[in-house]
Amino acid sequence: MDHKILQTARELIEEAGYPALTVDQVAVRAGVGKAAIYRRYASKAEMAFAATMHGQWPPPLTDAGSLYEDLLALARAFHVRMATPTARQVAPALISELAGNPDLDAQFQNTFLAAEHAALAEIIERAVGRGELAGPIDPTIAHLLLLGSLAAGLYIINLTVDDTMITELATAAAAGIAALADRHHSGNPQGATQPQ
Amino acid sequence: MDHKILQTARELIEEAGYPALTVDQVAVRAGVGKAAIYRRYASKAEMAFAATMHGQWPPPLTDAGSLYEDLLALARAFHVRMATPTARQVAPALISELAGNPDLDAQFQNTFLAAEHAALAEIIERAVGRGELAGPIDPTIAHLLLLGSLAAGLYIINLTVDDTMITELATAAAAGIAALADRHHSGNPQGATQPQ
Repeated sequence: MDHKILQTARELIEEAGYPALTVDQVAVRAGVGKAAIYRRYASKAEMAFAATMHGQWPPPLTDAGSLYEDLLALARAFHVRMATPTARQVAPALISELAGNPDLDAQFQNTFLAAEHAALAEIIERAVGRGELAGPIDPTIAHLLLLGSLAAGLYIINLTVDDTMITELATAAAAGIAALADRHHSGNPQGATQPQ
Repeated sequence: MDHKILQTARELIEEAGYPALTVDQVAVRAGVGKAAIYRRYASKAEMAFAATMHGQWPPPLTDAGSLYEDLLALARAFHVRMATPTARQVAPALISELAGNPDLDAQFQNTFLAAEHAALAEIIERAVGRGELAGPIDPTIAHLLLLGSLAAGLYIINLTVDDTMITELATAAAAGIAALADRHHSGNPQGATQPQ
């Protein structure tokens, strides 16, 4: 039934856009009760998020050869999934709901964000293994630098994000992560970027 | 009248929180017509944003001595203003409205975001002047790295952001900006962070 609900939601969003979507429509077309939908998803935004963005995210990403290439591949995959017209309608609505709904936020933290953090932890571990980083850093910070900045561009600032911008963010995130690894793992606690 | 509307909105938010706020309440207590409020602000969220966050932002920031210190000062000022409980309620609601309201988004771009971009452009110019950067970079990218990542942490991921995290973001943003300046202005178009 999950699959049917999400497939129907995707169809309706493609046909008429996210603002026109209702849980009623999905229930009627999918042939399920509204209660069945609300048992799974607390709101229209959560259902739409599950239908359009969440599934199979992040994709398995193999070792691309370097910290920079790994970050670039993750940012590109995020962009493919998260910068569609539908995503740019659904994500801001979900952001608004997360702020007022601790249960939904906990679910978002434990699924979607946890998967992104795991992907970044793996990328950092590979970079440490290659000798590119002096040691591991908190994946939360790496996540904010790469995907937080990209999400802010897409959903808060409403930028048109092209591949040039993605390569710039990946370049900067790689350098930033290296600077933090130096700061935490070198003999100099101030790090190379802090001249004081 | 602007001042009276915003002051009243602030009072009501402090008394009962953002979710309970209505434009009606503000009109009654401020002694102005609802139409007068809606001529200035398209929605409750826009009014609340103007009342609680937008005024006098960003503050004038003097030269703190280095790119890192300048970025840290801007991020700390943003955090003081933008991480209050009220801001964490208002900003996500505004994010949702911006996605569906191009006029409101244009106003947000031309005021709040333009001021933040100008602050970052000035910080970058000072760093170029000091010889810390090989040349200027697009303030849009610098903005995403520092304030975009911070805003994502506050409003999308609902992190508790402490000063340690702010110093990490400033450290990483400074290193990222330097890497982009090298990439654009050095003889090596791939930049130091891209080993390929």
